[in-house]
Amino acid sequence: MLRTHTNGELTTAHLDKTVRLSGWVASSRDHGGVTFVDLRDRWGMTQVVFSPAVSAQLHAKSQELRNEFCIGVTGTVKARPQGTTNSKIPTGQIEVQASELVIYSRAKTPPFEIGGDEHLSEEVRLKYRYLDLRRAPMQEAILFRNQVIFAMRRYLQSQNFVEVETPILTKSTPEGARDYLVPSRVNQGEFFALPQSPQIFKQILMVSGFDRYFQMAKCFRDEDLRADRQPEFSQLDLEMSFVTDEDIFAVFEALLKDVFKSCLNIDLVTPFPRFTYKDVMEKYGSDKPDLRFGLELRDVSSVFAATELKIFKETLASGGAIVALQVPQPSVTFSRKDFDDLGLFAKEQGLGGLAYLKVTDAGVDSPLAKFLKPEEIEALKKALPAASKPGDVVFFAADKKRKAHNALGQVRLKLGARLGLIPQGVYHWSWVKDFPLFNWNEDAKRWDSEHHPFTSPHPDDAAKMGVDNGNIRSLSYDLVLNGNELASGSIRIHDPEMQQKVFDIIGLAPEESKLRFGFMLKAFEFGPPPHGGAAIGIDRLLTILLGRESIRDVIAFPKTQKAVCPMTEAPSPVDFKQLRDLGIKIA
Amino acid sequence: MLRTHTNGELTTAHLDKTVRLSGWVASSRDHGGVTFVDLRDRWGMTQVVFSPAVSAQLHAKSQELRNEFCIGVTGTVKARPQGTTNSKIPTGQIEVQASELVIYSRAKTPPFEIGGDEHLSEEVRLKYRYLDLRRAPMQEAILFRNQVIFAMRRYLQSQNFVEVETPILTKSTPEGARDYLVPSRVNQGEFFALPQSPQIFKQILMVSGFDRYFQMAKCFRDEDLRADRQPEFSQLDLEMSFVTDEDIFAVFEALLKDVFKSCLNIDLVTPFPRFTYKDVMEKYGSDKPDLRFGLELRDVSSVFAATELKIFKETLASGGAIVALQVPQPSVTFSRKDFDDLGLFAKEQGLGGLAYLKVTDAGVDSPLAKFLKPEEIEALKKALPAASKPGDVVFFAADKKRKAHNALGQVRLKLGARLGLIPQGVYHWSWVKDFPLFNWNEDAKRWDSEHHPFTSPHPDDAAKMGVDNGNIRSLSYDLVLNGNELASGSIRIHDPEMQQKVFDIIGLAPEESKLRFGFMLKAFEFGPPPHGGAAIGIDRLLTILLGRESIRDVIAFPKTQKAVCPMTEAPSPVDFKQLRDLGIKIA
Repeated sequence: MLRTHTNGELTTAHLDKTVRLSGWVASSRDHGGVTFVDLRDRWGMTQVVFSPAVSAQLHAKSQELRNEFCIGVTGTVKARPQGTTNSKIPTGQIEVQASELVIYSRAKTPPFEIGGDEHLSEEVRLKYRYLDLRRAPMQEAILFRNQVIFAMRRYLQSQNFVEVETPILTKSTPEGARDYLVPSRVNQGEFFALPQSPQIFKQILMVSGFDRYFQMAKCFRDEDLRADRQPEFSQLDLEMSFVTDEDIFAVFEALLKDVFKSCLNIDLVTPFPRFTYKDVMEKYGSDKPDLRFGLELRDVSSVFAATELKIFKETLASGGAIVALQVPQPSVTFSRKDFDDLGLFAKEQGLGGLAYLKVTDAGVDSPLAKFLKPEEIEALKKALPAASKPGDVVFFAADKKRKAHNALGQVRLKLGARLGLIPQGVYHWSWVKDFPLFNWNEDAKRWDSEHHPFTSPHPDDAAKMGVDNGNIRSLSYDLVLNGNELASGSIRIHDPEMQQKVFDIIGLAPEESKLRFGFMLKAFEFGPPPHGGAAIGIDRLLTILLGRESIRDVIAFPKTQKAVCPMTEAPSPVDFKQLRDLGIKIA
Repeated sequence: MLRTHTNGELTTAHLDKTVRLSGWVASSRDHGGVTFVDLRDRWGMTQVVFSPAVSAQLHAKSQELRNEFCIGVTGTVKARPQGTTNSKIPTGQIEVQASELVIYSRAKTPPFEIGGDEHLSEEVRLKYRYLDLRRAPMQEAILFRNQVIFAMRRYLQSQNFVEVETPILTKSTPEGARDYLVPSRVNQGEFFALPQSPQIFKQILMVSGFDRYFQMAKCFRDEDLRADRQPEFSQLDLEMSFVTDEDIFAVFEALLKDVFKSCLNIDLVTPFPRFTYKDVMEKYGSDKPDLRFGLELRDVSSVFAATELKIFKETLASGGAIVALQVPQPSVTFSRKDFDDLGLFAKEQGLGGLAYLKVTDAGVDSPLAKFLKPEEIEALKKALPAASKPGDVVFFAADKKRKAHNALGQVRLKLGARLGLIPQGVYHWSWVKDFPLFNWNEDAKRWDSEHHPFTSPHPDDAAKMGVDNGNIRSLSYDLVLNGNELASGSIRIHDPEMQQKVFDIIGLAPEESKLRFGFMLKAFEFGPPPHGGAAIGIDRLLTILLGRESIRDVIAFPKTQKAVCPMTEAPSPVDFKQLRDLGIKIA
């Protein structure tokens, strides 16, 4: 190799050895007629010294060096003079006295400093991604990504899971988002779709008896890239036969425990708590609750059964709910402006407003105070999650039940942040299960599957199928970390009759279900096993573990929110001839 | 879980234990009023006994069972009665006396027997792939594939290689084949291309300082599927910085040694022999020689410098060559028909014919004999690869040098097979290096890159650039196994000026090179390191290791040679609305 050692390797154990190093000039400075170069590679940084005392010619050549030149250096390892050592880096006790220099390639002045810490626009970073990836935070992210993904593979292999590659050029799967299409040249007028997930294939692998499957799967969704999405993303996709949901929870818990230990030296406590969808919606107003802090919600409708307060009274009369959010003795004294801002925020969440009261020594202080009877105040205090104390602030949402919970759930998150209640660097995991099987789609006037149509109903609710569709729980579950949905899965239907019932309820006509996934229904005619699984979003997991702003910071070559790659300029126009070969035209 | 043990697990160590098994009915038979079921899963087979003596009701239910029903059984482990044990399977000493039976799902009669060994048409196998994958040979192939790929990852991780995922939705890379295109909805009229390989991205990762990269990469080529190709295929893609070709050979050799040991318990002998392109073309008439047998070629033009034989004379006069292929004392006596068949085959390879002679005790026996002078025969015998003995047969090709070698190389393979010279179950590896940098494209009247335009010229030939393009060697290499090109790679150009020279020679105008991979040229302005790499075709490697007919037998869900999936029926028509959203029309 064009080196004997990396730039992170040499120590005083190598003194007086002749070595060859290769790497990039991180910095180069003249000091007392001697050139000092910090030579960088993936492994570290080594100081190289070009002295005219060794060779005037070599020293002269070293003065050509500029940042990011790629060079090779031969020299001798020497101890750094006293007072010039650097204890921050492993090579900080030594330097290499150069006797030879090869300039492999020169570099223009980069658009930003590789070792700098100035804020860089994402546009520039993505355009010059090859330089952005030289920066320490990106090196760290990509190396950590590799480490985590390999740790996952290693663990699952040790548990007899088999990684199977499912096709990228395939047929649309019914995940609800738009497909990326690939025109077929051989069968003109027909198209492949890139998979939104390997859902059907992994279920077919269970039919085939692979028993324990996983895949680091590339998935593709042609969505409008609101928030933090990518057209292509990675998920750890997993499926098992002959299991209950608890078996799947156990595998994911053991997997994450192993990965956190091996990659972060963090001991996760398992099992993670399990909550039902109903629980967390009522307590946290969210199906992905951030459990790093309290601030629970309570339905206090019964407290106000005989209220004089018009808005509460009307809400209850129309079948709505009064939901309270107790802030026990907040560390911050809320100003009038705080209440106004929160009220505005609540309106953005769809509420009419955000009523509140403060508990005082004397009773309560609130714009509502005059409408509240003393027995109501007493009943309220008893109904709240924590023993009520002077200083507590209580907020109220009055609306349709689900809306009140959802909106107050958002207020809860806002308050958690505002009050500094959210500890950083901690991991609060939970499983949320028993999601509804169906959701009423008001626009289309029909029932939709909450997850996907292969999700099994909860056996205790099977009798409600077609009778009370809105109250059927499913055997589905999400893995939630610090308020983020990290994984999602379910026990699947393996009974063709039950599958047909679900299709009937969501109004999927037999001819359409056959067209979309007839091959899966066909496969299920040949003894499908009971099975279930889940998938973890890898990009999001890494973003959280690394504390980054965006999933784009954990992907080597991401697309922007406009679904383009500023570096390659993909997508791009193509030759007319290519389109003609494919039998398509631009409309 | 819905089982306490797998079907490959129970032995006499479990006698009298109550167990729960799940799996598929591999066979079910009635014997003396008792039902015997072979219960199968990925892990093995267990015999389950339903006896009316235990429960008449259970026994009656067991009679409903048909092959491929998926069931769960609770029962007690018993020793099989003497004379009924099966030493071929690990569970062959026991059986499970059932006390409970759950039919998870029923199965129609499969279109073929899962445990059968009849020949199945590939069409039926691919249509019912979910059942085909239940068959032992496919279970073996997919599990072995997983094992090999994981072994590769594990080894490369241990050597500090970092796996980086490069984009699937990207821009065309210049690999020469047709791209699969993906219309962009957000940027209508523009297209992503699926990568033919991650070539440019891996070189950019070297520019970014990742130093040692690999990826199990999905690659896509929209080719007419002659031979054994797939629209999407897997390669182990690898790139290293600061290396020579020998460093890359060493990594691949150590990798393969590790994989063969851990997956096949075979000790490979490394280093593999290195040959130059010139060597193997001259000796074997192929750049991917099958070294499992001899039958070397020799250029014997000088022997015939003064020949009377018209065809040889004319060939030499026009600058061609006479190439000989010696078959030392073949085990088979060639009949007239053998010679005729070989002559016909040679003509199919583009030769005018295939001259031959037999060495006899007296001299030679050949249609050519009368044209050969005794001193020519003597000189020929000396020129042949092996000492000439009576019984030897020698074939001759007289044509342009490259054509004569190529065609006789094909004849060599044919003879190797015909004479049973090719041992099975052995692995003959070699590196073939120093391929030509350019090939003259007679149709287009221009120089083409033999590999891709980023391949470095051999430093000893750099002065020939633009002067003697046909005789420039490159720093490229192939890994050859038993006559198959398994891997291909090169040391890349890292000098922008040299890159420009190559583009000039292949006639790539600056505006076109900028359009196609301007971002890479731009990246190379910022200190690219010396680097190189290679890629192994995973599908082909597995096909060879498993001794299968086709790469389709080592891929879970392959496409046919018509680039369709008979199971999903992809590609398929799509909604008009989808095309409208994408801004494209069917022409």
